[in-house]
Formats: sequence, C-alpha cells, structure tokens
Amino acid sequence: MPYPVKSYAAHAATGRLGLFQFDRRSPRADDVVIDILFCGVCHSDLHSVRNDWGSAHYPMVPGHEIVGRVLAVGAEVTRFKVGDAVGVGCMVDSCRHCHACGQGWEQYCESGVTDTYNQQDRIDGSRTYGGYSEKVVVAEHFVLKLPDALDLAGAAPLLCAGITTYSPLRRWKVGPGSQVAIVGLGGLGHMGLKLAKALGAEVALFSRSPGKEADARRLGADRIILSTDPAQMTAVAGQFDLILDTVPSQHDLNPYVPTLATGGTLVVLGYMGPLEAFNTGPLVFGRRDLAGSLIGGIAETQDMLDFCGQHGIQSDIEVIRIQDINESYERMLRSDVKYRFVIDMASLKEQTL
Amino acid sequence: MPYPVKSYAAHAATGRLGLFQFDRRSPRADDVVIDILFCGVCHSDLHSVRNDWGSAHYPMVPGHEIVGRVLAVGAEVTRFKVGDAVGVGCMVDSCRHCHACGQGWEQYCESGVTDTYNQQDRIDGSRTYGGYSEKVVVAEHFVLKLPDALDLAGAAPLLCAGITTYSPLRRWKVGPGSQVAIVGLGGLGHMGLKLAKALGAEVALFSRSPGKEADARRLGADRIILSTDPAQMTAVAGQFDLILDTVPSQHDLNPYVPTLATGGTLVVLGYMGPLEAFNTGPLVFGRRDLAGSLIGGIAETQDMLDFCGQHGIQSDIEVIRIQDINESYERMLRSDVKYRFVIDMASLKEQTL
Repeated sequence: MPYPVKSYAAHAATGRLGLFQFDRRSPRADDVVIDILFCGVCHSDLHSVRNDWGSAHYPMVPGHEIVGRVLAVGAEVTRFKVGDAVGVGCMVDSCRHCHACGQGWEQYCESGVTDTYNQQDRIDGSRTYGGYSEKVVVAEHFVLKLPDALDLAGAAPLLCAGITTYSPLRRWKVGPGSQVAIVGLGGLGHMGLKLAKALGAEVALFSRSPGKEADARRLGADRIILSTDPAQMTAVAGQFDLILDTVPSQHDLNPYVPTLATGGTLVVLGYMGPLEAFNTGPLVFGRRDLAGSLIGGIAETQDMLDFCGQHGIQSDIEVIRIQDINESYERMLRSDVKYRFVIDMASLKEQTL
Repeated sequence: MPYPVKSYAAHAATGRLGLFQFDRRSPRADDVVIDILFCGVCHSDLHSVRNDWGSAHYPMVPGHEIVGRVLAVGAEVTRFKVGDAVGVGCMVDSCRHCHACGQGWEQYCESGVTDTYNQQDRIDGSRTYGGYSEKVVVAEHFVLKLPDALDLAGAAPLLCAGITTYSPLRRWKVGPGSQVAIVGLGGLGHMGLKLAKALGAEVALFSRSPGKEADARRLGADRIILSTDPAQMTAVAGQFDLILDTVPSQHDLNPYVPTLATGGTLVVLGYMGPLEAFNTGPLVFGRRDLAGSLIGGIAETQDMLDFCGQHGIQSDIEVIRIQDINESYERMLRSDVKYRFVIDMASLKEQTL
C-alpha cells in the first residue's frame, strides 16, 4: 500500500517551496522504505527548482543528500534490515545492463539515469520526488550503508558533495606525494579539501578573496593561493597533478591550466556551460587534460562513505528547519553558508497539514 | 673541424627560402654526423618561417623530419656506426634530468626542449638549423634508428606526423576493439588513420567535405562521417573512445565531444590557440576529457619507427626538389598535397653556390 508523506515542493519556477502531500509507492520486492532524518541542500536543488536547466516538472520535491533509517524492506532485499542507517544520493535507478552500468558508472547510464527527483520512475512512469520529504522508497541497489562512525546529519552532504569530489580524486589516483588544488570553497570545495588531505595529498586552495585562510587550513589546505594575484599564480606554475574546479558558474579556467604539472588534469565539477576562449596551447605544450566528472557510481559512493567512516570525515553543516528552506536558498545564493545546509526532517514531521 | 653545408633558409618573415651556406659544428664526443637524404615538409615549417608564432630568428633553416645516413660519430657514441640509416625529429636536445625527461617526455622538458631549428644549442649557444640542409650534427640520444624495412623518403614524415599521432594512440591504449576517429585528412590525419588501423582499432574519419571516401578507406578508415551533416553526427553519438583532432586552425570542437563514448578523450594535436565557447557540459555529463599532446618522447619515437617497420607503414608522399620549396609551401596552404611533401636532398647537393 502507498505511503502518504508530507514534503516541501516547488509549484513553479518563480515560486517558493511549501508544504505538499503525496503518496510514495508501495514497495516492490527489491525496494527499501526509508524514514528520512536529514537531507542536505545542494546548489543544484536551487537550479532545479528555478528551472535554470529548462527541465523542471512541477510540483517538484528537491533533495538528493538523503540520510535515514530503514522502515521496511521488500521480499528480495538482502543487504538491509529495519533500523539500518542508510543514505540515498542523486540516483534511484538506471538500466543496470549497459556498458556504463556494467562499469559501475550508473550516473552515465546510456539510457539515462533516474534522478532522485524531477524524473520518471523506470517501471511505473510516476514522477520521482526527492528528500525534502518524510519517507522515500528506493531500489536496494541505490541505497548506501552508513558507517556507524558517521554523524547522520553531517553525513548527508557526502551523498552528493562528498562523492562528487571523491570520485575524481580516486580516478586520478591521488595519494601521498600528490599535489592537489581545489578551486572554490563551498559545499564541494570544502569536501575536496578534507578528502584530498585524508588521502595523503598536499592540498592547496585557489581562492578569489583573502580571509579564507584560517578556515581553509582547518579543512585541510596546506596553502592558499590568491588567484587574483598574478605573482602567486606564477609561483605555482607547473605544480599540481590534479585541480578540482568546484565553481558552479562561468569563470575563466585559463589561469589555472599552467599551474598543472606535465601530465596534470583540471577537472570541472561545477560549471556545465560554454567557456570563453579556453586556450588549447597549455594542453598541447604541457600534456594536460581538461576533464569533466559527475558525482560517482554506487560502489564508489559506498567506498567513499566507508572511507569517511574510517577517517572521521563529514561535512561542515548548518542544520535548518524545513520551514526555513526559502530563506536558506537566498543565503546559499549569497554564499552565506559554511558549508552546507542540512534539513532536520523532524521539523517536517511535526508540521500539520 | 666544422662542416660547411648548403641549405635553404628564410631571411625574413615575408621572404622566400633560398640557398644559404653555414658551418655545422665539429662533432662532440656524443654527436652523430648525418648526411641528410630526405626531409619532410611540415606545416609548422611554414608557420615558423612566416613567424606566425612570433619567435622566429633569421636566417632560419626549417625541417624536422630528417632521414639520412651516418657520416661520422663522436668517440662516445655507442648505438650508431657510419652508414646506418637514421632519423631526427623535432628535438635535438633537452636537460635530460628533470621529471619530464626522466619519464621519457623530452618534448616537455621543464627547462625547455631544444628544437631542431630556430633554437639555441644548450652548450655553445649557437643557433640550431634544421633539415633543409646537407648534413646535421645531433647528440646520439636524439638520433633514431630507421628499420631496414622502411623506405627512406616515406619514413621522413614519421619523425613528426607519425609520432604526433602514434603517441596519443599509445597513451590511450588503442588496440583491437577500440573505436578511434580522426578529424582532418592531412599529413597528421593520414598517419592517424594508418597507425590506428595497424593497432587494431575500428577507425573513422570526420571530414568536412565529401569526396575523400576512397582515399580515406585506402588509408585505413572503416567509415567516413561528414561532419557538416547533423544526421551523420547524431548517428555516431557516444561511439568513440578516442578522437584525434589534427586540424591546425581554429574550429569548433563542440560537435565532436558528444560522439565520444563515456570515458572517451578528444586529443588536440594541431591547433594551439583559444577555442570559442567550448562547452563543459558534455565533459561533465559524459566523463569525457579534452587533452593536448605534443609529438612524443625519444623512446616512444623509436618504438613508433619499429612498429612502422614491422607493419610496413610509411607516409604517402610527394617527393620534391628543394628548388621547388616555395611553390610547395603555396600548395600546402591550399591543402594540395597527398599527404606530405618530402625534399630529395640530392637536389640541394647538386646545386652550386
């Protein structure tokens, strides 16, 4: 039988989020029913709600950094039992048999991944609704185990901001001796500093504004490079094996490329549009790459959570009530958050319809 | 004692190449003296002579696809003897101890590689002069062995066009089952087709104009995709593991990126300037890379020559007399060459001062 749940939904691109009730589907044999305790607020929730990417369907219930406990499981579920602490990230299904899925790259599923919200369920065609809600029903394959060591609220942003930075750090084999730099100190950037440091790398932060030094060092940066200072940029020419660019808006990547070592890679994680006058010369003359990376696969996400459990890594968060979500979006637009808002879903459960 | 040699040199950016005599240095202990038999004509010779890159010194003797026979060797030379068939490519020296040199990436030497022409010798500071000349004196480390199986004239373009396409094919592990595409059918492009095919890949040519089909198939292409036809481009979405872009001028790379498979790489080999509005979206959403690559290291160049010897691969060439070099440059500008001009240096030797 379906689960009626309360949620916060947007009803139009210009509108605010407000209380909305809908039915979660009856669990299928491979489904896990999750009582949501916390949900992170990702910058892409804001893009989605405001239809910045042109694909919005309303009502839209955002949220893809979901943490909770198992309420019930379908007959074929083997990896979870009632009461387990679990997480759900940006995906709730994929075709599971294409080349990408076979590689564990469900996020690149050739027939299109099923996003946690603003998408259609592959089986019954219903809309998917995200984590700004009381409960969620998700196929077992897309449910992650949360290590006991992790704080449930602080773990929520790992499901998107954590895996988005962890995946490229692993793909490019970052470890002791690696020189890594992070561009931008937000939700992704602060996780990038923590994870790169925990992997053993020497870590730098490129920042456009002074004053972030103390915070960046606390988060794992060995040094801060003011990217607006040409002398500081010249001083780090040829230094980095890997740069993770987490800035979510258009900006000039050219100044960062010469700071890559021969064979180094600049990975774009935040911005997904056209660059102005990106120069190919430093790629050709320096054996350098410009790459893109999108979250991470399910097995890799589990690996990231286990790594965070072992190293005591979680996100720096500010816990909010769901009733404050619209104000929190405004603050996020002003970068006024250190470094991720996480909704305490108790605030939703106590609200009356 | 120095070797007086005849050559063809440019004396100004606007000028034509004409006969020029200068002295090659006395061989040092590690030097090989080479009697030049053939020299390929690379598009970058034209860029250099006309000072398109702003670094021209005159008189300039171009030529970095050099094939000849050993005339003499210094006391410490161990790998070559008089009479050996040898080649010299784009480099004649590097620091030999930096990280890049240690990796066998002399072309990325951290203190700057010594180009075969239009550069300064690292030891005596003299200008380097290229292969449009009778003889050349080169340190043993930068001299390549030519396999007996190779035609001397047809082998000359392997020293630049060959290694420039071979290096990325190897770096991205092209072999049976690989899907490779080449953009542009010129000196580099025609070698890319031959080498990718010989490595066992399925090979496609992206072409902007019809009518190249028969030639492309003869050179190794399994299919030709007309890049100006949106239907043909859509039909190959997500297909290629590796695309080598050999076009030497600014053009729109965006249409090629979506034809890369998940995890695929587009390598820029020809153009070294800024791109207009290069879109990062298909990188992020497709786990794709944009990379640059510059010729190849010395050990890799030897490996390429040995591979070509084993597979009977050489460049398709049109042999010219050095007295026709200015006209050949004009034809090269019109892409009127299939697919590389090679100078028969006998034409220079018989010319009187």
